[in-house]
Amino acid sequence: MNNVPFAIAIKFPEIIPGMYDSHILRKLSSMQGQFLDEQAFTQTLSQEDLLLYEVYNFERPKLGGELDSGLSILHPGKVGQEYFMTKGHFHTVLETAEVYYCLKGKGVMVMETPEGEWDVKELTPGVVLYVPPRWAHRSVNTGNDEDLITFFVYPAIAGHNYGDIELQGFRKLILDSGNGPEIVDNPRWQAPEVRHNGS
Amino acid sequence: MNNVPFAIAIKFPEIIPGMYDSHILRKLSSMQGQFLDEQAFTQTLSQEDLLLYEVYNFERPKLGGELDSGLSILHPGKVGQEYFMTKGHFHTVLETAEVYYCLKGKGVMVMETPEGEWDVKELTPGVVLYVPPRWAHRSVNTGNDEDLITFFVYPAIAGHNYGDIELQGFRKLILDSGNGPEIVDNPRWQAPEVRHNGS
Repeated sequence: MNNVPFAIAIKFPEIIPGMYDSHILRKLSSMQGQFLDEQAFTQTLSQEDLLLYEVYNFERPKLGGELDSGLSILHPGKVGQEYFMTKGHFHTVLETAEVYYCLKGKGVMVMETPEGEWDVKELTPGVVLYVPPRWAHRSVNTGNDEDLITFFVYPAIAGHNYGDIELQGFRKLILDSGNGPEIVDNPRWQAPEVRHNGS
Repeated sequence: MNNVPFAIAIKFPEIIPGMYDSHILRKLSSMQGQFLDEQAFTQTLSQEDLLLYEVYNFERPKLGGELDSGLSILHPGKVGQEYFMTKGHFHTVLETAEVYYCLKGKGVMVMETPEGEWDVKELTPGVVLYVPPRWAHRSVNTGNDEDLITFFVYPAIAGHNYGDIELQGFRKLILDSGNGPEIVDNPRWQAPEVRHNGS
């Protein structure tokens, strides 16, 4: 990790893991409690621990002014009526943003703040998506048979806090209505203040 | 400039200036003293004050953790044997990085540090280019008749210091050898320490 420039061609679909500093693979088994239809989750998992998504990272020293970047590849599929999605996370340093540039596929970014605000934005190739500081974010592949591929950049000091949003759940879920994606309330969502009061 | 997410399709070549927070246009006349061949510069300028490049910005509050992003469009052309290029700059907050993702065209990024290190990296579609903290950077369009278009992200606190690199010049220039681009020494380059001692 020298402090010299780098330039790397990330032309997909030919992805060369060795070009990246790290490669994260997330399988269905790591998403316990996240999908609405628990029966469908258990049944799908009993058949195969499917690979939901992969993240390839260019990592820099965790210093102010440094930027991490990389590629997120979210495969298509559903658990029950719910589209494949990423775990989602707040940044550990909450006051840090993230910029996405959508390269391929079709999907949405589901976002919310600790105060309970929420938003859902569409991702299609050529879209720049800005996740402001404080907003947890999860991408969802609403395409039928295509990967959702995004390029991302965030401050290297940001860090990933998966725990909080995993406990409270995202406020909104993205289901296949049979007629395309729809945004529905997550019946298991708990406002952070409620959860914190109860702990 | 609310603290809410945004998602904007920046599908080029259809660029809609109104989608962006700012639009910078740089013409030949703003590049006095930057091109090697002064006679060619004067002659070209006397014919037309050509538009060299345009930058479209998504701007955020200048706070730690915030990220600016945007699109740089560098038109093709030459002044004498030297390809069209951007002014180039250090970041005012020197210890801030920048990430580029090349969308279209063919070019290079010319980079150097205040200590005199230099580097030149190729830009072609699909290339992620990382400019570490401390490195001044300038893009150069080495294509024959196509725009060089890059998407960029940097910390919103970075700021642009054009003055220092304009005074000292970039250490390396990119000329058309008649057989493609070549990297040549800038005969007018002054090491910053020399310039500072003399001032």
